Amino acid sequence: MHYPEPISKLIDSFMKLPGIGPKTAARLAFFVLNMKEDSVLDFAKALVDAKRKLTHCSVCGHITDQDPCYICSDQRRDQSVVCVVQEAKDVIAMEKMKEYNGQYHVLHGAISPMDGIGPDDINVASLLRRLQDETIQEVILATNPNIEGEATAMYISRLLKPTGIRVTRIAHGLPVGGDLEYADEVTLSRALEGRREI
Amino acid sequence: MHYPEPISKLIDSFMKLPGIGPKTAARLAFFVLNMKEDSVLDFAKALVDAKRKLTHCSVCGHITDQDPCYICSDQRRDQSVVCVVQEAKDVIAMEKMKEYNGQYHVLHGAISPMDGIGPDDINVASLLRRLQDETIQEVILATNPNIEGEATAMYISRLLKPTGIRVTRIAHGLPVGGDLEYADEVTLSRALEGRREI
Repeated sequence: MHYPEPISKLIDSFMKLPGIGPKTAARLAFFVLNMKEDSVLDFAKALVDAKRKLTHCSVCGHITDQDPCYICSDQRRDQSVVCVVQEAKDVIAMEKMKEYNGQYHVLHGAISPMDGIGPDDINVASLLRRLQDETIQEVILATNPNIEGEATAMYISRLLKPTGIRVTRIAHGLPVGGDLEYADEVTLSRALEGRREI
Repeated sequence: MHYPEPISKLIDSFMKLPGIGPKTAARLAFFVLNMKEDSVLDFAKALVDAKRKLTHCSVCGHITDQDPCYICSDQRRDQSVVCVVQEAKDVIAMEKMKEYNGQYHVLHGAISPMDGIGPDDINVASLLRRLQDETIQEVILATNPNIEGEATAMYISRLLKPTGIRVTRIAHGLPVGGDLEYADEVTLSRALEGRREI
């Protein structure tokens, strides 16, 4: 045993976090030892609070400390559009953009047969229930642009076809600020395919 | 405000750690949300315990949950050698080696006039007190091989000269497994200077 027990326990806890190996964990643990006691107590409280106070919104599935969440309960937002995303993080990415003013629906995953995740394992049933309400006129599929995300988008679009609701998919193309030279073939081909008149 | 309050507080806490920016902090916070409640409570407890239960050993200055620390109170260790290091982390690095069986003395810093850290700001006075005990016959200076560490080693070696105790400095040279081609000039020159017959 190289470390006194309290610090080795803290190192173990840090090592459970993604992307943090033994060296970084030790560095963070030693940093904590030199932090002010107040800051450490705040940190501990923040951990417990985040875990205990946050739940998933019963309407859209976004993480929230009130139910329904601040987006679902905001009457100024457009009630006729629902943007479907994979994770709560994606809602936050969309909100940062400050241009979308509609509703969200968080799937908490994507269809991935390789990982044993089928259509029943993602939050789709509640999306269908929401769509029975006739105010929703468009569903924007904003799942990730990878195999799982595409499969999920395809699945949901087919599922919604009979309802007659407009279903759209966010555009693929070159990222702004990117370089044509470094774009992969698939992205470039999608960008060409999705070209528009200017 | 993009995040519900409990999660933004957790993100802020993670961002206070070294090398963790807003993106990583958000990633870690979302990871915590998906952790088991027990693990999160353990993490919070580990943080508070590490801060509250650990103190500095009154003899050597190493971090410890008992006083004197497990190294100072281990009678099987060699009482005649003291290895002087800058930080508690350095004690752990030395202990991992499993070849040194003497005592330690942690300075908690190094002399650095640029940062306003003078000889009185590091834990040297208690080292001098320890040396009055005649069992100590050698002081190994294992401060870092940079300007501050060298200055500190130089200062302590001059301070101890009148006592007649043997003062040594750990060797500079090429790191094992390193490549001569990539060694900087100073390291190479020190390696040449410190050459030994084989």
